[in-house]
Amino acid sequence: MSTWLLPENIADVLPSEARKIEELRRRLLDRFRAYGYEMVMPPLLEYIESLLVGNGRDLDLRTFKLVDQLSGRTLGLRADMTTQVARIDAHLLNRQGVTRLCYAGNVLHTRPRGLHATREQIQIGAEIYGHAGLEADLEIQQLLLDALRLAGLSKVRLDLSHAGVLAAIFEADPAAAALGDALYEALAGKDVPRLAELTANLQAVSRDALRALPSLYGDASVIEEARQRLPALPGIARALDDLAFLMGGIEGAELMLDLADLGGYAYHSGVMFSAYVDGVPNAVARGGRYDKVSEAYGRARAATGFSLDLREVARISPVEARSSAILAPWRHDEALSAAVAALRNAGEVVIQALPGHEHDMDEFACDRVLVERDGAWVVEVRAA
Amino acid sequence: MSTWLLPENIADVLPSEARKIEELRRRLLDRFRAYGYEMVMPPLLEYIESLLVGNGRDLDLRTFKLVDQLSGRTLGLRADMTTQVARIDAHLLNRQGVTRLCYAGNVLHTRPRGLHATREQIQIGAEIYGHAGLEADLEIQQLLLDALRLAGLSKVRLDLSHAGVLAAIFEADPAAAALGDALYEALAGKDVPRLAELTANLQAVSRDALRALPSLYGDASVIEEARQRLPALPGIARALDDLAFLMGGIEGAELMLDLADLGGYAYHSGVMFSAYVDGVPNAVARGGRYDKVSEAYGRARAATGFSLDLREVARISPVEARSSAILAPWRHDEALSAAVAALRNAGEVVIQALPGHEHDMDEFACDRVLVERDGAWVVEVRAA
Repeated sequence: MSTWLLPENIADVLPSEARKIEELRRRLLDRFRAYGYEMVMPPLLEYIESLLVGNGRDLDLRTFKLVDQLSGRTLGLRADMTTQVARIDAHLLNRQGVTRLCYAGNVLHTRPRGLHATREQIQIGAEIYGHAGLEADLEIQQLLLDALRLAGLSKVRLDLSHAGVLAAIFEADPAAAALGDALYEALAGKDVPRLAELTANLQAVSRDALRALPSLYGDASVIEEARQRLPALPGIARALDDLAFLMGGIEGAELMLDLADLGGYAYHSGVMFSAYVDGVPNAVARGGRYDKVSEAYGRARAATGFSLDLREVARISPVEARSSAILAPWRHDEALSAAVAALRNAGEVVIQALPGHEHDMDEFACDRVLVERDGAWVVEVRAA
Repeated sequence: MSTWLLPENIADVLPSEARKIEELRRRLLDRFRAYGYEMVMPPLLEYIESLLVGNGRDLDLRTFKLVDQLSGRTLGLRADMTTQVARIDAHLLNRQGVTRLCYAGNVLHTRPRGLHATREQIQIGAEIYGHAGLEADLEIQQLLLDALRLAGLSKVRLDLSHAGVLAAIFEADPAAAALGDALYEALAGKDVPRLAELTANLQAVSRDALRALPSLYGDASVIEEARQRLPALPGIARALDDLAFLMGGIEGAELMLDLADLGGYAYHSGVMFSAYVDGVPNAVARGGRYDKVSEAYGRARAATGFSLDLREVARISPVEARSSAILAPWRHDEALSAAVAALRNAGEVVIQALPGHEHDMDEFACDRVLVERDGAWVVEVRAA
């Protein structure tokens, strides 16, 4: 086996892609900051119990495990940063009021999501803690749309859902709750035959409600339809009120309701959303409310946020990274060194051609040259 | 064990430190780019054989290992990015001429370097491939000094050494070469008694040369002293000529020679250097030439570069990250939304206080407020 082969579904990011990722990373972090989100950097490795807090079996299976020589305990290589940031809010910052945090970092998965999917993503996201009201959900959704717009993705569809619908059905009928992961999977895949099979022995009210969910998809009129077709439980009424408020408040995206879209992470407790762009089948960003995660850290805090994979967004973003440069000679010459330094300080890329390498090519388009004219160094357009 | 405790020598980076790291990261990457260095992002995980190419036992011991479920093979969590970038140059880019690459990413170590040292560093660095001449070493050293200056570290001492000195002694005397790692350790620690012990049975010329190395430390005059005290081997003469050239060419740092400083990585083949700043005992950056690493990837390429730990540089850097912000109310008001968006687009941080949280405090100093005056939203200085 050659020493230069990489593991399956693991890849290097080469210059043109790396430049684009870096450009988008800065735009998004700057935008998060413009909204008042403070950046944090949680570690790549944590004790496995901490990493998996509030998460289901899915994240456990996707998390690489290794042994810590210092403690003999099992560490996890993070597969998701959301609970890490919740831990920071709950314990390290320990503030009473609203805390806005953002982050960007690599996450690893033991298995790819699909045949060509990467096992190493660059997760970037933003979270608000300490406010249970819908204003926080609205701000997070606006921030996501703003971030996607800065990535050149302006035609976005936002699908809204609500964890409270299923929670209310489960609370009213323990037999439905017992279906667990299988039910989530059938709903996520809108697998109607499987759903019929799973719910066959439930009481009529739960069965009809669960079977109705896959068809409760569409524009704002779905809210009224849901009020009629779903049981009149207080949790369902609240969830539908929440969704109606957000449908009226979000600007800058096509809004859809999808009451069966409960995928993603097991820890969500309220409004959930997924952002889609034309021509890309999977959601480019996901988010939602997860008020119960911090309880595992001993301190209940309202929480809502979103995250996305920067590599995937860079892949579909039309943003272009500039790469124009000036080619300069290499010589022991103080005036040349001063001219090169001044141009670099002014934001130009100046490449000094090392002796014998005057005609090398790389990512940069050297459209100009630094040349000596009458004893002075000047920039000229390079002959084609 | 609480779920919020982190493993030993692993820590979260909280907002004020994260902000500073992010600021320095951008300054350094922008400066690398201004010199024509293209950014690459190698993966966090690779097959262990690839990661350890050209490296010694030290890096092996410091690298976390885990099992790849897809292949059943052992993966390493990178402890150093240099050989990864050499692999990218050798195989993926596969250019004939000069290639300049830079990178920034997290690296993990199984064991900390010291009692309070972190096991997770943010390694940032720059490398030139394809030019064996000293011009490349000079450019890399100037770039390092330029980067440290941008981090606010202008009083820098650069210690130069050369792997060719020891290589020449080893080539002339296999018994000296057989001392291996123990000899490197004694030299790195300037452990004179241990060195005397190790070299006791060597032939006189090797013994005297090795014992002389720890005292060959100081200004440019050390080169002449070394020519007299070290054996007249061609490899030693070339190494001293290289060092003399660089001592005359580098600007902007106090220059010192330290012929026993051969620590760091086992793969170095030519000029090596370490940068020190006042009040910090360990080197803040290290680098040097490693022409032989790429041979393991089947393609010999001249190579020289440097790297540093961004967390450590941020800790000692006097650069201050700004955090001034504008506090705005939360209200359904189109004029307010427009005013907030305009300020954010102009680069301001605008924090909308969620209902009930008008008096929260965080990292941002809200020195101004957005208020409504005669129907228009205006920014005013906030009353103390």
